[in-house]
Amino acid sequence: MTPPHTLPVPLEKSYRLINHGPTVLVASAHGGRRNVMAAAWNMPLDFAPPKVAVVIDKATYSRGLIEASGEFVLAVPTRAAAAQALATGSRSGRDEDKFAALGIEAYSADKVGAPLPGGCIAWLECRVIPEPHIQQTYDLFLGEVVAARADARLFRDGHWHFDEAGTRSIHYIAGGNFFATGDAFTVE
Amino acid sequence: MTPPHTLPVPLEKSYRLINHGPTVLVASAHGGRRNVMAAAWNMPLDFAPPKVAVVIDKATYSRGLIEASGEFVLAVPTRAAAAQALATGSRSGRDEDKFAALGIEAYSADKVGAPLPGGCIAWLECRVIPEPHIQQTYDLFLGEVVAARADARLFRDGHWHFDEAGTRSIHYIAGGNFFATGDAFTVE
Repeated sequence: MTPPHTLPVPLEKSYRLINHGPTVLVASAHGGRRNVMAAAWNMPLDFAPPKVAVVIDKATYSRGLIEASGEFVLAVPTRAAAAQALATGSRSGRDEDKFAALGIEAYSADKVGAPLPGGCIAWLECRVIPEPHIQQTYDLFLGEVVAARADARLFRDGHWHFDEAGTRSIHYIAGGNFFATGDAFTVE
Repeated sequence: MTPPHTLPVPLEKSYRLINHGPTVLVASAHGGRRNVMAAAWNMPLDFAPPKVAVVIDKATYSRGLIEASGEFVLAVPTRAAAAQALATGSRSGRDEDKFAALGIEAYSADKVGAPLPGGCIAWLECRVIPEPHIQQTYDLFLGEVVAARADARLFRDGHWHFDEAGTRSIHYIAGGNFFATGDAFTVE
């Protein structure tokens, strides 16, 4: 089952889901195991085909799942899910299923095996673009976005509409300190 | 002259200047020419030594200056400077000095030859970590942060204090649409 109230986002607009620099969850799965971790260090890398970059530390359980499966999901959590997002960083998927332990729903992705975490408003399904040197040297992973989905109440016609809904994405600094995504404004 | 009201930021805390995913200006200089462009696609890459990643398109004038000098500056503009930041993307440094044309002050950096643009509240001075394959294939540049500076009224003790000052950093989406950095909140 895909997450409720969501629609696919055209691939050429998918970069806009993370162009404003939100902290994301990274979901992964391989061989019957799955995991989810938070990652502030992520960004779009290209428009068409859409690509992303994300830092996945060698110490994480997610790292092995991503390397083995060649897939990951970047998901944009809401402010209401910020505590859950932070908690993904203080537990290890080696010891437990973090989805179950933290009460995070796991929905079905459209194109990859990794789950789409609940408490989120956008998801980018990615296949790893193998670049072993930068993966090993910098923990830097590149991915091609093969499917994207968003909460249709918040992202429509290629743009976020946070102000109407009150729901916001989040931006992590350190020590449990976040900023919510703030006021929308337009300049010529 | 360094920008007014600023202090150096310890290198080990410098990632916090861009950890929340703001759109930045990229400043560069070489052989008596200088340039500035906006880049939403940037992120921290490591804590110590601090590193960053940023996408610099082949079509930009900045690309040649950065490749020739091996240096760049990432600067965090304020909401008041958002129109100026956007305008850096619709003009080319090949045709004119964008600092002069757009009325952007150019302050002296501490460690690199590239200038520190005005209208900003934080600056990361970076030396390119040469990775020719990913520069050529993905327009992806990695840099080591060799000096950092911030507006001391806004960034103190390793944390942003936007709420007190009203000044905010910015997060670009597309088509002139931005979000301001929003409310600070803390979770346990």
